[in-house]
Amino acid sequence: MTGREQENFEIVPRARTGDETHHVVIVGAGFAGVETARRLAHARVRVTLLDRRNYHLFQPLLYQVAETALAPSNIAWPTRSLIRGAENVTTLLGEVVLVHSRHKWVLTSYGATIHYDTLVIATGARHAYFGHDDWEPFAPGLKTIEDATHIRRNILYAFEEAERMAQPDERRKYLTFAIVGGGPTGVELAGTIAELAHDTLRGEFRNFSMQDVRVVLIEAGPRILPTFKEHLSEYARQALERLNVEVWLGRPVSSCDEHGIAVGDERLATKTVVWAAGVQASPAAEWLQVPSDRVGRVLVEPDLTAPGLPDVFVIGDTAHVEQDGRMVPGVAPAAKQEGRYVADVIRARLEGKTAPAPFLYNDAGSLATIGKRAAVVDFGWVRLRGRLAWWLWGVVHIFFLIGVRNRLMVALSWIWIAWTGQRSARLITRSGSEEHESPD
Amino acid sequence: MTGREQENFEIVPRARTGDETHHVVIVGAGFAGVETARRLAHARVRVTLLDRRNYHLFQPLLYQVAETALAPSNIAWPTRSLIRGAENVTTLLGEVVLVHSRHKWVLTSYGATIHYDTLVIATGARHAYFGHDDWEPFAPGLKTIEDATHIRRNILYAFEEAERMAQPDERRKYLTFAIVGGGPTGVELAGTIAELAHDTLRGEFRNFSMQDVRVVLIEAGPRILPTFKEHLSEYARQALERLNVEVWLGRPVSSCDEHGIAVGDERLATKTVVWAAGVQASPAAEWLQVPSDRVGRVLVEPDLTAPGLPDVFVIGDTAHVEQDGRMVPGVAPAAKQEGRYVADVIRARLEGKTAPAPFLYNDAGSLATIGKRAAVVDFGWVRLRGRLAWWLWGVVHIFFLIGVRNRLMVALSWIWIAWTGQRSARLITRSGSEEHESPD
Repeated sequence: MTGREQENFEIVPRARTGDETHHVVIVGAGFAGVETARRLAHARVRVTLLDRRNYHLFQPLLYQVAETALAPSNIAWPTRSLIRGAENVTTLLGEVVLVHSRHKWVLTSYGATIHYDTLVIATGARHAYFGHDDWEPFAPGLKTIEDATHIRRNILYAFEEAERMAQPDERRKYLTFAIVGGGPTGVELAGTIAELAHDTLRGEFRNFSMQDVRVVLIEAGPRILPTFKEHLSEYARQALERLNVEVWLGRPVSSCDEHGIAVGDERLATKTVVWAAGVQASPAAEWLQVPSDRVGRVLVEPDLTAPGLPDVFVIGDTAHVEQDGRMVPGVAPAAKQEGRYVADVIRARLEGKTAPAPFLYNDAGSLATIGKRAAVVDFGWVRLRGRLAWWLWGVVHIFFLIGVRNRLMVALSWIWIAWTGQRSARLITRSGSEEHESPD
Repeated sequence: MTGREQENFEIVPRARTGDETHHVVIVGAGFAGVETARRLAHARVRVTLLDRRNYHLFQPLLYQVAETALAPSNIAWPTRSLIRGAENVTTLLGEVVLVHSRHKWVLTSYGATIHYDTLVIATGARHAYFGHDDWEPFAPGLKTIEDATHIRRNILYAFEEAERMAQPDERRKYLTFAIVGGGPTGVELAGTIAELAHDTLRGEFRNFSMQDVRVVLIEAGPRILPTFKEHLSEYARQALERLNVEVWLGRPVSSCDEHGIAVGDERLATKTVVWAAGVQASPAAEWLQVPSDRVGRVLVEPDLTAPGLPDVFVIGDTAHVEQDGRMVPGVAPAAKQEGRYVADVIRARLEGKTAPAPFLYNDAGSLATIGKRAAVVDFGWVRLRGRLAWWLWGVVHIFFLIGVRNRLMVALSWIWIAWTGQRSARLITRSGSEEHESPD
């Protein structure tokens, strides 16, 4: 593209409040970043919200895109539409590649440097392979829409390949699905893949029986859903087994290649592995040259600023926040609470008020669903399992979706699946560049 | 993948009716192919339906994916779910690369040869550039879901780039959208892109005004919608101009590159061009070595068989069917009628009955919409324009969608756009391989 060289200066959003206004740059439009921006809407600051995507993603339901229940657009909203009314907020598409914390600017992937008075880094995390990055091509993780449609393609394509495969041994590989990681995402994905096979796809194939399908959930630790109470983990395991999911506990994955995975001494021949274990924070700690934990999360101060950088906040999955000796978990409510807190600190500073008390995480509890009939809920004051928990899970997730239309669409999709078993988004899609390739 | 060499034989679908049964192979799961398969469901034939996609696409609404109104899964259904109940039909994912019409088999992209007794080719058409294939990278066409999400990405990305662009001249290029081709797709796309800018995106950008947006529809012929009556073409032109679309008539595109297009002597500086002119049929005529017309359509016999090959039918956009000295148009109703006719011919032959009379196309009329308030309808016995035509257009399209849930979802999306202006699928998505690239 032409003219790129000349663009190498700050883009000054046309701020109605005048250019002398305090400029808050927020990097990342996940739960934490969007919450900060919304809380600063109409405040006497100029806000620039940067993200490398043009949409905000409701990640807790991302697995339902991977398993064909929901369309990507059901759980993603254009970021700029979320703050359209706030004239002091400018949304820019772009990735930050460097932060200069002494001179207070960020460098974007499209070549512009943007000066900030206050910086909020909320760039999230990706999945990680415990030092085995070479496993990624064979065991994709689930953090982005592209990840989800990639996994969806793998799952649907495996059934298609099995249908045209003459040799039973080869076919079996395609009908075996392995999910690595027994947290909520792994559990939810395993349950719904089993339902996809036994419910949605029933009667559609001529070359094999759905009895040949194996779904295996592999967890290195002694139980699935380790953040829940033990009896809920046990309930979830039984619920998965009722859906014909094999649950392998206490067995870490030792290798992973195109023929399948090895779990301890045992090999599992499979063409479809999904990685739902391990995270790696975005490189904020490197940008800022501040201490981080084992997976790269910045060890923030009690007010969520980076150590030694009072004008830089780090929140969401990029931050390591300790409370009562335990880490605040990487969940949406924590990210939102951090976003709200940071916006309040910024407002207090600008108004010359005393700083708010240190950040305090309010644990709203955990939920996980197993297929379309069971779930576990742990709110601390109440613990539930079974069908009632499933309804509660559904209501909570519908409630936290943004926008009436998306709520209607998702609710309609779920009701449809519950009634008919039919899932709405069973598409093997590919990128433009792959367009003319054969499906192999 | 292993074992590929050994797969080089016919895959015999496990036919409940015995392997001696007459085998009909249908290539292509568009309107024509699916209609043939459905009409042969439960007949005393073994049917194999092959497509390189796992879904059937409702192409008349594809432009609404490109302009962010609908999600891909709203207008696509897994092919095999459409015929799940028909145990005599096997659906296979795969592309045909060769037809051996003397020995009666097809070769698939995944290396299997499939023998047929009767072959039905319904592989459709793609867009064409009148010998200027080098224009394609700068002016993508709209035939597949990937095409539609690619164009959607281009359109949305142009606005994002304009927001971060400091120089007005460069910005103007990104805010100019050119659509080449004044048929229904071009007209519908131009109208909805204008609405996207002036309605949906209003108030979301800080660096430019939507008054800077130009949408230009370019038609080489003397009027848009040439298959409609002249007064309807003129009405459509006025309706587009009311939506601030510039309509350039009688001016063919003479060149196309990354800086824009040339129309006659005039250059139009634009970063976003959509190609909605010209088709090129799939290579069925080459496979069969039979005569074709200028764009590759097979010149079929009155019973829709290929010349000299009574066991091979060619239908849909791959066939050139003449009637009363005019060509049967490449529209969904024609494709479906041809599919039904061919199924009836096959049944009659197997039952030893006399062949049906030659194929007769029943013209159901034409419809095109201009934005969300106007449309033109020409059913022959009645011609309409304006708001009533728009409602009729909507009802007809909802009616022809497959499945109650999709009808609900699409109706809900349209009602939402009519009420709020908000479109549901404003996502810039990319393929897995592009995942780690910067948005530039």
